[in-house]
Amino acid sequence: MNDVKNLKIAFIGGGSRGWARNLMCDLAQEPALAGKVYLYDIDKDASDKNAKIGNLLTAREDVVGKWEYISCDNSKECLEGADFVIMSILPGTFDEMESDVHAPEKYGIYQSVGDTTGPGGCVRALRAVPIFYGYAKEIEKYCPNAWVINFTNPMAMLVAALYRGFPGIKAFGCCHEVFGTQEILAKVADEKLGIKATRDDIKINVLGINHFTWIDKASCKGHDLMPLYGEYIKDHPEGVSPDGGHWANGAFDTLELVKFDLYERYGVIAAAGDRHLAEFTPGSWYLSSPDRVAEMKFGLTPVSWRKEDLAWRIEVQNNRANGEPFEFYKTGEESVRQMKALLGLESFITNVNMPNRGQMENMPLGIVVETNAFFGSDEVRPVCAGKLPFVVNSMVTRVAQNQEAIIDAAISGDYELAFQAFANDPNVNLSLKDARALFNEMLYNTRKYLPFYEQYAKTQK
Amino acid sequence: MNDVKNLKIAFIGGGSRGWARNLMCDLAQEPALAGKVYLYDIDKDASDKNAKIGNLLTAREDVVGKWEYISCDNSKECLEGADFVIMSILPGTFDEMESDVHAPEKYGIYQSVGDTTGPGGCVRALRAVPIFYGYAKEIEKYCPNAWVINFTNPMAMLVAALYRGFPGIKAFGCCHEVFGTQEILAKVADEKLGIKATRDDIKINVLGINHFTWIDKASCKGHDLMPLYGEYIKDHPEGVSPDGGHWANGAFDTLELVKFDLYERYGVIAAAGDRHLAEFTPGSWYLSSPDRVAEMKFGLTPVSWRKEDLAWRIEVQNNRANGEPFEFYKTGEESVRQMKALLGLESFITNVNMPNRGQMENMPLGIVVETNAFFGSDEVRPVCAGKLPFVVNSMVTRVAQNQEAIIDAAISGDYELAFQAFANDPNVNLSLKDARALFNEMLYNTRKYLPFYEQYAKTQK
Amino acid sequence: MNDVKNLKIAFIGGGSRGWARNLMCDLAQEPALAGKVYLYDIDKDASDKNAKIGNLLTAREDVVGKWEYISCDNSKECLEGADFVIMSILPGTFDEMESDVHAPEKYGIYQSVGDTTGPGGCVRALRAVPIFYGYAKEIEKYCPNAWVINFTNPMAMLVAALYRGFPGIKAFGCCHEVFGTQEILAKVADEKLGIKATRDDIKINVLGINHFTWIDKASCKGHDLMPLYGEYIKDHPEGVSPDGGHWANGAFDTLELVKFDLYERYGVIAAAGDRHLAEFTPGSWYLSSPDRVAEMKFGLTPVSWRKEDLAWRIEVQNNRANGEPFEFYKTGEESVRQMKALLGLESFITNVNMPNRGQMENMPLGIVVETNAFFGSDEVRPVCAGKLPFVVNSMVTRVAQNQEAIIDAAISGDYELAFQAFANDPNVNLSLKDARALFNEMLYNTRKYLPFYEQYAKTQK
Amino acid sequence: MNDVKNLKIAFIGGGSRGWARNLMCDLAQEPALAGKVYLYDIDKDASDKNAKIGNLLTAREDVVGKWEYISCDNSKECLEGADFVIMSILPGTFDEMESDVHAPEKYGIYQSVGDTTGPGGCVRALRAVPIFYGYAKEIEKYCPNAWVINFTNPMAMLVAALYRGFPGIKAFGCCHEVFGTQEILAKVADEKLGIKATRDDIKINVLGINHFTWIDKASCKGHDLMPLYGEYIKDHPEGVSPDGGHWANGAFDTLELVKFDLYERYGVIAAAGDRHLAEFTPGSWYLSSPDRVAEMKFGLTPVSWRKEDLAWRIEVQNNRANGEPFEFYKTGEESVRQMKALLGLESFITNVNMPNRGQMENMPLGIVVETNAFFGSDEVRPVCAGKLPFVVNSMVTRVAQNQEAIIDAAISGDYELAFQAFANDPNVNLSLKDARALFNEMLYNTRKYLPFYEQYAKTQK
Repeated sequence: MNDVKNLKIAFIGGGSRGWARNLMCDLAQEPALAGKVYLYDIDKDASDKNAKIGNLLTAREDVVGKWEYISCDNSKECLEGADFVIMSILPGTFDEMESDVHAPEKYGIYQSVGDTTGPGGCVRALRAVPIFYGYAKEIEKYCPNAWVINFTNPMAMLVAALYRGFPGIKAFGCCHEVFGTQEILAKVADEKLGIKATRDDIKINVLGINHFTWIDKASCKGHDLMPLYGEYIKDHPEGVSPDGGHWANGAFDTLELVKFDLYERYGVIAAAGDRHLAEFTPGSWYLSSPDRVAEMKFGLTPVSWRKEDLAWRIEVQNNRANGEPFEFYKTGEESVRQMKALLGLESFITNVNMPNRGQMENMPLGIVVETNAFFGSDEVRPVCAGKLPFVVNSMVTRVAQNQEAIIDAAISGDYELAFQAFANDPNVNLSLKDARALFNEMLYNTRKYLPFYEQYAKTQK
Repeated sequence: MNDVKNLKIAFIGGGSRGWARNLMCDLAQEPALAGKVYLYDIDKDASDKNAKIGNLLTAREDVVGKWEYISCDNSKECLEGADFVIMSILPGTFDEMESDVHAPEKYGIYQSVGDTTGPGGCVRALRAVPIFYGYAKEIEKYCPNAWVINFTNPMAMLVAALYRGFPGIKAFGCCHEVFGTQEILAKVADEKLGIKATRDDIKINVLGINHFTWIDKASCKGHDLMPLYGEYIKDHPEGVSPDGGHWANGAFDTLELVKFDLYERYGVIAAAGDRHLAEFTPGSWYLSSPDRVAEMKFGLTPVSWRKEDLAWRIEVQNNRANGEPFEFYKTGEESVRQMKALLGLESFITNVNMPNRGQMENMPLGIVVETNAFFGSDEVRPVCAGKLPFVVNSMVTRVAQNQEAIIDAAISGDYELAFQAFANDPNVNLSLKDARALFNEMLYNTRKYLPFYEQYAKTQK
Repeated sequence: MNDVKNLKIAFIGGGSRGWARNLMCDLAQEPALAGKVYLYDIDKDASDKNAKIGNLLTAREDVVGKWEYISCDNSKECLEGADFVIMSILPGTFDEMESDVHAPEKYGIYQSVGDTTGPGGCVRALRAVPIFYGYAKEIEKYCPNAWVINFTNPMAMLVAALYRGFPGIKAFGCCHEVFGTQEILAKVADEKLGIKATRDDIKINVLGINHFTWIDKASCKGHDLMPLYGEYIKDHPEGVSPDGGHWANGAFDTLELVKFDLYERYGVIAAAGDRHLAEFTPGSWYLSSPDRVAEMKFGLTPVSWRKEDLAWRIEVQNNRANGEPFEFYKTGEESVRQMKALLGLESFITNVNMPNRGQMENMPLGIVVETNAFFGSDEVRPVCAGKLPFVVNSMVTRVAQNQEAIIDAAISGDYELAFQAFANDPNVNLSLKDARALFNEMLYNTRKYLPFYEQYAKTQK
Repeated sequence: MNDVKNLKIAFIGGGSRGWARNLMCDLAQEPALAGKVYLYDIDKDASDKNAKIGNLLTAREDVVGKWEYISCDNSKECLEGADFVIMSILPGTFDEMESDVHAPEKYGIYQSVGDTTGPGGCVRALRAVPIFYGYAKEIEKYCPNAWVINFTNPMAMLVAALYRGFPGIKAFGCCHEVFGTQEILAKVADEKLGIKATRDDIKINVLGINHFTWIDKASCKGHDLMPLYGEYIKDHPEGVSPDGGHWANGAFDTLELVKFDLYERYGVIAAAGDRHLAEFTPGSWYLSSPDRVAEMKFGLTPVSWRKEDLAWRIEVQNNRANGEPFEFYKTGEESVRQMKALLGLESFITNVNMPNRGQMENMPLGIVVETNAFFGSDEVRPVCAGKLPFVVNSMVTRVAQNQEAIIDAAISGDYELAFQAFANDPNVNLSLKDARALFNEMLYNTRKYLPFYEQYAKTQK
């Protein structure tokens, strides 16, 4: 049994100004656990600063979760003997992301996020999958019994890459997008039933793939919310405004009109932000033009915004590393609770991304799906989630299977297979010639982070 | 949504002196629920008495769960519009069970229970499966949305019969045998870790078929109990005495030596009473003779004991119906908690019997398996339990598949198929000629409760 | 065993001027079989005429297969005791098909055939599925052991409808589209290897769904044709002209450019006519406008052409019924050979449409797929065809799963489900509002043949 | 494409006096193929002699298949660049087999063959599986595109070992046991229908595992043989005498009474020799004592007989190597025909052993099963064989799953797992203590050929 007061957490991407900050905040507030957090980042300066911030935190009197933070020189030092591994990296820089998101625009392809699916998600995966595949092999070597929690996008493909690199890995992907939909359902419960419900009161069955997840059953204290959601949509033809939004959701709030339209199409609830959902359907539905996006009241997050936002985050990081005081906050994330459950301190059910081994019917085995799972002592067991209606499954498996090809291509460095999958994306609706020109351009733009670009380059001739 | 203060429970076998009594006791102590319980039994006098007892209970001041009990004339009255259906019947009488259990003895076949598998379980299933199949059709007609909880043995085959009769049924089977093994594990935690644990502290992964269920992962507050169980066995070569045993376990206590021997054979924990476990393995292992049974320190429950026990139960029932006061007790059963969860009042995980839809790998889909499941608002979702080691699965699927043939035979009235399955049972190790003679005798003995006996009789000529 | 000289064939749609004619021609040339053909058609006059033609044939001296043809008054007479049932009907008339094919044009949706998928295939299925479902129930009653051969489109959905109506049915669907691709491969063998090959020399592995079938392995006398096909495409940038085309392929020849483009996209061979293939991919690829169709050198078959063609066929039928002599021809169809195999007279492998029971991986079980199968005495056993590359499977399962919803909707009369599937079709790329208007119009146009239109109409209000 | 006149066949176990002789004989009579056969054997003298015999054959004028035979010094030379690999070895010597077969007798366990299942088959597998696993890795290195044909027992476990060592291997196992049952069915056709049929006329559907294979459908020229087989059994209560038996079947002829008894038990046809079949059922059925064996009219082949037989075979080999002339014979084996099919020269259907990928329902995927398969150009595709009746599947999966554990144990050198599987065998019906004593003794006896015996030995302390 792990010693809950002497744990080792390895944080890959430990210079992060988002997830690392959240984790430190959550750990500081949890009295049951203690130990060391090893931060590793290719930007050593950033992980140094996070270590400083973490240790300053630990020194504070109001902090009940005492952790030592160590900035590492290499991944071996970070991983060796870890009880938990957190994966939170940026594959490449925002310059690469700029290409991912904006290069396709000249072909009329708009992307609201560009990190999960679509042309941007595909090329991002080509960069990130080999990295995760490599980390899986290191985890097999240095800490095969560790639980590995991934926060990086493209979530599903990267969890899959971990399992390809080390089939015995104990890994899952964690995503809060579903929580937002639970919050909308809490509003439904309030408006339709007069129940003031928290997210925890909203019981849902989740199934699908990350960012294209669906809810086919929802209740609040025994009341079926599915038909009420339909009524709620009718009552709000202009959409509903958010309560504040999540820190990671970026530039634009949405009014949930994509989500509502999908309910009208399919009768089940799409459970992710509209900016993600729009990218999984045929491009002509919600992303045909900036005007269409405006009409559907969501937003296209420009990478320029991310760059500005990053500058501000860096400043915050610097200030805090220099001792600027700050308040705790409720992050709304569940990783610390998950760790406690895996250590045997409690048990609960939440949604995770794991390879399908029966939890989702009519989806090929092995594909990483998002469903509820039971978290208990050293175990995460998916709950049988049933099957999506065939019309919805039709769309979900379309993308899920395309992603399998991207993963294979990224691991084997197979240019043609990567291109086949790229051209087959619902949002890449181009002639073969245009698709190839765009693909080549996007690979060229991001070649610094494509380990097999040379090979690509050769095959392109 | 169901009105939790105005529920209708249909109790088939409502004259029962075991499960009905428990349910009344548990309902009386639960303040969250109220409504009416409709009792139906072919022995109307018995259900009348239970109704009296129930209503006397409700009149008591110390009772917080107020229910009206109604003894019905027919199953339609009982089932119509029910929110829950409880199935707890005796298929035939103890005279039939006497044949089930003791007729095979003249061929050297001994049975410790005789209600689940082996020659007795097979013939009992031939009587009970058609009854359950018929009730499923009535449930489809009168209360298709009800949750149906089965307590009757042979558990797995009868749950399967419900799904064959009405594939859309919301049914599961409930069995407390696993609880007993959790209690042994609590002793392990005490002895090996010094932890005073309750059954709820013992977290297990359950998989297999009813009464031949296995635990491949067990922990207590984060401590892995699997290796400790092995040590515990070594420390107790003479077995361990029970804490008192369960009301339904009948005539003999056991010292767990069958369970321990199976752990030594397979390295995983068999999770049912020894009297049941012994019947699933080849007869020569633990049931070759009364001496062997004595050596393994379990017991052969004679039906004469059941008859005496019944006489006493009837007396108790009479006395209580006539107003004799009695104490509440903790039944240890979970049905009321399950109902609360299904009504959306709480949620939890427990073991149930349901058709395999992916929760147990390497077991054909559709076969009724026992695993953990999540109970929530109007849903019971099995948890992915993984797979048994192949050596164990080899034995479990052997019996599970044989049971499928018995179910088919019972529904279609196929004498030859029933006989094939009978002769193929691990505990029926006879020449074809002897097997047929025994089978014919057992069918003849129980013909009053075999709806298709006539047909059988004809085909036998 | 069936008496091969005294067979009964039931022909549903026996007034047919296409398949019936072919069958009579093939039967006339086959000396091994004899018996009676019962023709049933809602157009009794047409089946009378076919009976006349058939019997005139039998009377001819050069005819070696002697059959008596009987025009029936009802389906019971036709089916009772049949050894084989042929299903070849037109669901509705060409007036309904006119709506199927041309009504969507006002929304910019073009269809090259309109009988298998797309908006036309969907609405045609809504008419035809209930008919086939009904026939399956009659077959269960009147000739449960008959082998049922379907020629009617939408092939996959109608074979599925037969299995839904009578799960024990021995049915398969027969389609010659794959043969055409084998003929192209024979040209490849000629041009690249100098081998003069017949279709029979071209060995292929087939998998997918009807009219969206794929070849992932092709050889001729041990030579791998897959890479040679790629070279052949490069050698023929303008496409290749057909050898004459198949009698049923209708108005326009194609130059295979859609097929070639799909090979460039996916590296495997699409094995159906271009007019069918184009309808399974996103509408913007090959069907965005008549100009795009012209560029890809296939054709949009107008229903007016079918009507003219029918008038000519009726005239031919009339003339022949009146004794006009005619020549035999090689139909290229395989049904008579299939019957011989099922009767135990030979065995062979060919492609058929049957529910997936393992022959195609990564496709949900039960969905009707097209693969090779072994034909032997009273058996058709699919051959394990493996799996499509994920990118291709992504597209195939998209449509296959949508079709499942259409079948469910057609059988249950579920308007909303039918609409969901309609709106989800790759070639129906409309806003929800436009999709609904078009759907309603197409249902209204064809209401005479929609048994549940009333119900539809009501729910539309 | 392979050059059919310049092939390379690698023969592992090339000193063999059985299969090698057959193959030379069959190759000599086949004019379509030519090339070189590389023989490798740990007994170099034996392969030298076989090479001499082969080359003498090639020099003969009446030989139409001209092959050069080369005796190799190592497996690399043998395998490098091979088109086909034949696996035919003896794992250990007949001394080891003597222990396999006879050591268990002191515990009352009798074995009729002892090379496939039972205690002997288990220990033989522990010797042979690591060898095959190793060859698979060499094949991956030296000839990854070769087709690998295995003739060695335990057939199913060794084919599985090949796939574990190199998952991309193109391997199958070849067994003629089913042919013998076809010959019995030919007698049935003669006696019951008056049809003089050859084995090729007997069409069967085969499913199960090697040597415990079943036929659930059999016909001859369209006549169903299944019910006739039942009548035939009734007509021959004393069994039927063989026509001469197969060269490899060894010491005793059988009268098929085990096969007949199994038909009476299950209604489907067991399709292997009685000596094999008896070993798969509980030991008490047919192998409880030599008297029982005599009663069932099959035989226990003593290893002493095999040793004498070997001496005679060696003499024949010596004489032929020295130029003694001999006649060709019909071997009845299919390997040459299989090679021709794989080279694209013909295609046909026959039974093979391959991992289950859907061809056999209700059997875990990956387990090596025996079913029919289609042999074509560079492909062996199993035919969907359906499922066994549950009662039979119950017995077959029992052994099949136990074998999976043996394979795992043999590859990983896991003593305890090997023992668990050993003790779980239907024919090892011993107390744990006796089972362990016997297991230890058998391992000790054969330690020279158990690569991981040291490790075993240590864990035994």
